[in-house]
Amino acid sequence: MAETEPGVLARVRRGHEERVLGLLREHGALSRAELGTLSGLSRSTLSDIVAALIARAAVVVTTPESAGRKRPPGRPAELLALNPDTGQTLGLDFGHRRVHVAIANAAQEVIGTAALGYARSTSWQRRLEIACGLVDTLRTGLGPLQGVGVGVAGPVGRPGETPRRTEVLIDGLSARFGVPVVTDNNTRLAALAEMVRGAGRGHTDVVYARLSDGVGGGIVVGGRLLRGAGGSAGEIGHVPVNPSGRSCPCGGRGCLETFASVPAVVAASGKPDLPSALAALEAGDADAAAAFDRAGRALGFALAAVCNTVSPARIVIGGEVAVPRVLAAAEAALATHLPPAQRLPIHPAALGDEVGALGAIALVTHDSPLLIGYPRGAHRREDEA
Amino acid sequence: MAETEPGVLARVRRGHEERVLGLLREHGALSRAELGTLSGLSRSTLSDIVAALIARAAVVVTTPESAGRKRPPGRPAELLALNPDTGQTLGLDFGHRRVHVAIANAAQEVIGTAALGYARSTSWQRRLEIACGLVDTLRTGLGPLQGVGVGVAGPVGRPGETPRRTEVLIDGLSARFGVPVVTDNNTRLAALAEMVRGAGRGHTDVVYARLSDGVGGGIVVGGRLLRGAGGSAGEIGHVPVNPSGRSCPCGGRGCLETFASVPAVVAASGKPDLPSALAALEAGDADAAAAFDRAGRALGFALAAVCNTVSPARIVIGGEVAVPRVLAAAEAALATHLPPAQRLPIHPAALGDEVGALGAIALVTHDSPLLIGYPRGAHRREDEA
Repeated sequence: MAETEPGVLARVRRGHEERVLGLLREHGALSRAELGTLSGLSRSTLSDIVAALIARAAVVVTTPESAGRKRPPGRPAELLALNPDTGQTLGLDFGHRRVHVAIANAAQEVIGTAALGYARSTSWQRRLEIACGLVDTLRTGLGPLQGVGVGVAGPVGRPGETPRRTEVLIDGLSARFGVPVVTDNNTRLAALAEMVRGAGRGHTDVVYARLSDGVGGGIVVGGRLLRGAGGSAGEIGHVPVNPSGRSCPCGGRGCLETFASVPAVVAASGKPDLPSALAALEAGDADAAAAFDRAGRALGFALAAVCNTVSPARIVIGGEVAVPRVLAAAEAALATHLPPAQRLPIHPAALGDEVGALGAIALVTHDSPLLIGYPRGAHRREDEA
Repeated sequence: MAETEPGVLARVRRGHEERVLGLLREHGALSRAELGTLSGLSRSTLSDIVAALIARAAVVVTTPESAGRKRPPGRPAELLALNPDTGQTLGLDFGHRRVHVAIANAAQEVIGTAALGYARSTSWQRRLEIACGLVDTLRTGLGPLQGVGVGVAGPVGRPGETPRRTEVLIDGLSARFGVPVVTDNNTRLAALAEMVRGAGRGHTDVVYARLSDGVGGGIVVGGRLLRGAGGSAGEIGHVPVNPSGRSCPCGGRGCLETFASVPAVVAASGKPDLPSALAALEAGDADAAAAFDRAGRALGFALAAVCNTVSPARIVIGGEVAVPRVLAAAEAALATHLPPAQRLPIHPAALGDEVGALGAIALVTHDSPLLIGYPRGAHRREDEA
C-alpha cells in the first residue's frame, strides 16, 4: 500500500455508511457506543460517518423515550435512528409502454405510487421527463432522497457495460436528484420485490419467473440479486426445455419462452388471444387445457434445472400465464425431475403492476456490495451453517 | 440492542480477524496505521485483533526492508505481515476409497500432499485416524495451523443440518487441532480449487462439473461457493436433459447423470468398461463415438440451463468422461441453446486427484461470510458494475 487510490477510500467510506444505516435498520435506534461496538468502527471514523448521515437527514438524533426504550440510569440521553420522515427511496420502472413510480420512507414503507403510459416509440429522454413529472407530484413537501433505483425492460449488459438507454436514465436522474442511481432489468427487480415484500417474504433464496409477452426471471441468492459475470443470470425464460425445440428470438433453441409465453400459449391453444384461451380453459376446452398444461410442464422442467443449480428456498411465478392450472402442471413436472428432499411448492406472485418499482426501491437498499455478508438475520444464519 | 448475545460479538470478532488477514493477503505487509485506515477498525479493536493473530503465529512483525519496501523517513520501522512459515491450512478430502491430504502455507502455496486408500466399508472414525496419520507425517517440524477444510463425498445437507459422518470428522479434527474446521461436498470443493488455482483461475464466476462414476458439480458466484438454501446448489449432474428420460438414482428423471456418467457412457457404447469404450472411440468405433457424443450433447444442454441461471465467466469440466470428443459435442450443443453473446468455451479441468484437498484449503480462506463483499480485486469490480 505504497499509494492509495482515492477510489478505495471513497468505497471504504461508502461501506461504512451502509454499515451504520444497516445496523440502524436492523436494530432500531442505537447509542453511539452501541453503534461503535456493533460496527467495529473507530470513534473518529464513526463520528465522521454519523455527522455526514445527519447532514443528509438520513439519520436523526432522538431520545430513548421517543425510540420506545427505557433510559438506563447514568447513560447518555442520545440515540441515533433512521429518519422516519425523510431519507426516502425512489423506485422507477420503465416498461415498454408505461412507467411506474414508487416512493418508500426510510422504514421501507411505500408512501406513494403512480404510473403513466407512453407510446412504445417514446424516446428515453421523454420517458425520463414523464417519470420526473410523476415524482414531482408524489414528492410535494417531502424531504431529501437517499437514492434512486431504476428498472428497465430488456437486458442490462455485462457488469461494467452500460447500455445507452440506461446511461441516459442514470445521467438524467443523477443530475436531477444528486443521489446515487442504481439500475437493473425490471423482471430481476420484481424478483427482489417479491422477496422483500411479496410471496418470497422471509426467504433469502428465491427463484422468480414471469410468464408474460416474454418469459423473464430473477434469482435472489443469500438476499442478493444474482447478475452473473455475463450479466444474464436469472434468464429462466431461456433455459432450454427441449433439445429439438424451435428457435427462440434470443438466438437459442427450445427455450422455456417458446412454450410458456403468452404468444406461445395462445398459438398452442388455437384461440385468438389470451383472454379467449383463458375463457376456453374455464369452459373445459381440451385444446386450451393442453396448451396451458404444456406450458406448465415446460416451466416445471426448467425450474428443476434452476433448482439443481441454485437450490432456492422459494419459487414464485408471476405473469398473465401463471394461472393455477399452469402452476399445478409445473409442480407435477418439478416433482418428476427433483429428488423428494429437494421438491418445493410453487407460489403465485403476490405483487401487482408496481412490482418493478418496488424492486427498484429494494435495489437501493439491498444492492450494496459492502453491506453483503454483515449480520442480517436469515442471511447470516444460512452463511454460518 | 438492550442485550447482546455472546455469539454476536464472537462473530464480529471473527469477522475482524478475517478482515485483517484478508487485507494482509491482498496488500502484503502493512503498517498498523495502514491496516487501521483500510479496515476502518478502531485502534483498540485493531490492537486486540493483531495481538491475537500474532499469538497464533498467523501474523508476524517485520520491517519494511524485509518486506521489500523502502523505509519512508520518519515512519515507524514496524510492519505486519502474514507469517510465511506458519499459519498453514490443512485440506482433507475423504473419497469413497481414499483420503487426500494437502497443506498450504499462509501464502496459499501447497507445501505437502499425501494420499492413502481404504476399503469402502471403512468406518469414519478409522478414516479420520488414517488421515491424521498422513497429516502427522507431513507436518513434522511445521508451525501452528490456521484452519482445516474437509471435503466429503455425497450430500452435505441443508444449511444447519450436519450429517452424522460430517459431525464425526468435525468433532475429531477440532479436538485434534484446536482450530476451526469447515466442510463441504468434495466435488463442490473441486470447483473452488479450479477457480483458485486451476482452469478457472482469474475468474470469480465458475461453473464446474465432473463426469465420473456419477456426475457432480459446483458453482462459484462472485468468488464464493454456492450452496443454496436447500444445500444442493451445483448439482449439475441432476439437471434434467430429457423430459421423458429414465429414472435416476437421485429420485428424479432424465438427469444429466443418466447420460454422461461412466456407467451411462459404457452402457451406451456396448463395451465392457470405460477403457474399452475409450479405446474403441480412438479406433473409430461408431457405437463408442455415438455414446460419447450423446454424453456431450446432454452436457451442453444442461450447461445451457446452468448458464441461463447463473451466467458464469468460465466453464470447467473434469472427470474420466471429459475427453475432447465429449467437450466438443457439449460446446456445439451449448452454442445451439445459448444466444451468441452468452456462448462460452468449455475448458478441461486442470487439477489432478488432489483437487478436493486443494479445494478444502481454499474453503478455509474463501468461505468467510464476513469477508465476502470486502474489496478483493475482480470480485469487487464485478460488484460495482
